[in-house]
Amino acid sequence: MSDRLSDVLAHIDSDIDNSLERLFRLIEIQSISTDPAFAGACLQAAEWLADALKGVGFDAGVRPTPGHPMVVGHAKEGAGPHVLFYGHYDVQPVDPIDLWETDPFAPRIVTAADGSKQIVARGSSDDKGQLMTFIEACRAWKAVTGKLPIPVSILLEGEEESGGPSLVPFMKANKDELTADFAFVCDTGMWDKQTPAVTTMLRGLVGEEITITAAKRDLHSGMYGGAARNPIHVLVSILDGLRDENGRITLPGFYDGVGELPPAIKAQWDALGFDSAKFLGDVGLSIPAGEIDRSVLEKIWARPTCEVNGISGGYTGKGFKTVIPSQAFAKISFRLVDKQDPDKIRAAFRDYVRSKLPADCSVEFSPHGGSPGIRLPGDLPALVKTRQALTEEWGRDCVTIGSGGSIPVAGDFQSVLGMDALMVGFALDDDRIHSPNEKYDVSSYHGGIRSWARILAALSEKAQS
Amino acid sequence: MSDRLSDVLAHIDSDIDNSLERLFRLIEIQSISTDPAFAGACLQAAEWLADALKGVGFDAGVRPTPGHPMVVGHAKEGAGPHVLFYGHYDVQPVDPIDLWETDPFAPRIVTAADGSKQIVARGSSDDKGQLMTFIEACRAWKAVTGKLPIPVSILLEGEEESGGPSLVPFMKANKDELTADFAFVCDTGMWDKQTPAVTTMLRGLVGEEITITAAKRDLHSGMYGGAARNPIHVLVSILDGLRDENGRITLPGFYDGVGELPPAIKAQWDALGFDSAKFLGDVGLSIPAGEIDRSVLEKIWARPTCEVNGISGGYTGKGFKTVIPSQAFAKISFRLVDKQDPDKIRAAFRDYVRSKLPADCSVEFSPHGGSPGIRLPGDLPALVKTRQALTEEWGRDCVTIGSGGSIPVAGDFQSVLGMDALMVGFALDDDRIHSPNEKYDVSSYHGGIRSWARILAALSEKAQS
Repeated sequence: MSDRLSDVLAHIDSDIDNSLERLFRLIEIQSISTDPAFAGACLQAAEWLADALKGVGFDAGVRPTPGHPMVVGHAKEGAGPHVLFYGHYDVQPVDPIDLWETDPFAPRIVTAADGSKQIVARGSSDDKGQLMTFIEACRAWKAVTGKLPIPVSILLEGEEESGGPSLVPFMKANKDELTADFAFVCDTGMWDKQTPAVTTMLRGLVGEEITITAAKRDLHSGMYGGAARNPIHVLVSILDGLRDENGRITLPGFYDGVGELPPAIKAQWDALGFDSAKFLGDVGLSIPAGEIDRSVLEKIWARPTCEVNGISGGYTGKGFKTVIPSQAFAKISFRLVDKQDPDKIRAAFRDYVRSKLPADCSVEFSPHGGSPGIRLPGDLPALVKTRQALTEEWGRDCVTIGSGGSIPVAGDFQSVLGMDALMVGFALDDDRIHSPNEKYDVSSYHGGIRSWARILAALSEKAQS
Repeated sequence: MSDRLSDVLAHIDSDIDNSLERLFRLIEIQSISTDPAFAGACLQAAEWLADALKGVGFDAGVRPTPGHPMVVGHAKEGAGPHVLFYGHYDVQPVDPIDLWETDPFAPRIVTAADGSKQIVARGSSDDKGQLMTFIEACRAWKAVTGKLPIPVSILLEGEEESGGPSLVPFMKANKDELTADFAFVCDTGMWDKQTPAVTTMLRGLVGEEITITAAKRDLHSGMYGGAARNPIHVLVSILDGLRDENGRITLPGFYDGVGELPPAIKAQWDALGFDSAKFLGDVGLSIPAGEIDRSVLEKIWARPTCEVNGISGGYTGKGFKTVIPSQAFAKISFRLVDKQDPDKIRAAFRDYVRSKLPADCSVEFSPHGGSPGIRLPGDLPALVKTRQALTEEWGRDCVTIGSGGSIPVAGDFQSVLGMDALMVGFALDDDRIHSPNEKYDVSSYHGGIRSWARILAALSEKAQS
């Protein structure tokens, strides 16, 4: 470790109470983005952050959008790769307020049963606590050395919890300004309290709504049943045919571009001690569904899937109506991984549906989404450096993990700005984000600041070597 | 033909204008059973009919029920089988009233484009015109000979169009009084304007609603998709497995008790010239569904089937929600024929569903209905006599036909009173029953009265021979 980094880390440790106080000031601003009544608070949070960045030496400002504003700051000093850091300053609503032990916007530190210190407040973890780890790391570097080790830009959003309609247009309108060598997205978690993680795999999404029409009106199942086509029968046959007996998706070419997990990643995951029985048992299930020859973790992080998210047709009210409906519909989504092509998957699905359609039925398709999966190469230099820094800070090997869900901003950075996103965060599974009594461990906050200080140093070493 | 019958038919012909006037008086009573505002009119129609029956010499009266009253009359004179005649005096609502060319309850005779005379009014066909054919035939026999050829009872219902909740309890409470050798149900039609028909096959019904539960709460399809069981997938697999590639139902024992159509019936049906392309084309279809080796007519009249009448699960609103639902459900109905046992079919279905259910899913069943099909033997003496009489009246072979839908009263006569029901009526496909400008051909009314006069005579001959 360089002397400079040692000094920075020491400064972080000695200044941690002040760092907490600054976080508390941000948390006290009630920046609930979904409720228009809090639009003023959202603006206030953005202004507070722009001022904070200016205080650290960033060229920063509040940037208007049709919705809540963005905060953008630049400190393009130091040598090495230019990184864009992303976080969001908006928070979830606090309902049900009755279940909060204290005021959600009056942050306090409590000592948990295991002796750990926790910051309890809305936004303590998601995402104010997380984004402040980075700003405080920058603050420490500036305080100790007068400048950052590498060029840094920061983008802070105020609509993450409300669908983020302004983000992509803002990226497109400010493409040159926002494009860096790669991005850090700080909105994910550690594997567990001891084990740091970088999320490097995200599944993409292709959605399709299909409506199948048979007869031109609803028919009486007594008069027509057995001779007239029932579109529900057509639909269930189509949907059932999407999976084979081994749980694999049957669409031709569906697995094109799906790579096997690199042995190093597989070994990491095997070592995680993931308890698939508990994962399923917590929601009342006991038998893994899907591909029979894959582990649960592989299925949800690294394998594509197809789920019927909704289905409807005929009479669904109370009692019975002996109808053969004219139409039946379903909403189907595919989760994509690795190099699967969303457009090809959509086309293969539509071809398949049409191939199974009786000649006197028709189908309408309505597309939804269409984003590829993300899988960062394990030898990406920024990833290697980041993992190394995290390993050093936490004293345990940093793992690369996946996320079955989507983190749209990561895909947007890729598709709009053409840059990879490394997802690094310090949240824990029990942080109760989106729920009453949200918390962020002081160890997450303190260790997070130290982690970023190390990562910035590690990235600059690369450039200097 | 006996002289007595000739005289009766001649009387019917000479009295037809008076017969029409009497029908008009009944039609003018606005006996809409579904609307409580017309309860008084329903009672008035019942009283009018009881008086009419008394006028013809029946021992008749209005009999209260928790709903609209029944009319029951007896004239147990003559020799031969005792028959119970069934019709209903209530009518459908008249909405949309704007589409009626004249007052629905002001009957009038119009001349159609083809020169035929038609009675236009609500209830002219369904079922006031039809039930009056029988009463007028009895009137003619009484007027000419002083008595009926065979013992006759009459049961007229006032809740047929509103679900008929009082009928079965009334049958059960008056079992001895209502039980006869067999019943005539006059609420069906002729094959076409020239060809009389007796409906001898009705399909039964077994309904089941199933709810499949997988996880104990809805899951995010990103976090769980590919590893957690989706109950919609389970449901579509179950439903799709109900039919094989030849359109046959796969439940073990499903076809037990399903006989092949007797050659005589098959020959009759082949001769009907049924236009299956038009039948399907009228509702926008062109390819028969269901069993590949059966004609459309056979499928809807004489073959069992299984239809999914409703299905629902997951998110079905606008847009998309990437959910794996906890539950999915469907409403399924089986139409039964011949000697299929509803209880066995229901049990086979439930066994099948359970056999396809993953061990960590559960299913709830909710039964609906449960009535066997009806298939009268072709050599039933009453049927043979009735067909002969109808053939003589209309100058064309009377056909025995089926009905894909249910006529519950026929099953109720069978199950509650233990007697067969012959369904004889004179309605035509274009009578617009339940619709604006409902009509009944004067030829249906006049020929219907003459038909019943002949049928009563034919049944008495049997007894006398």
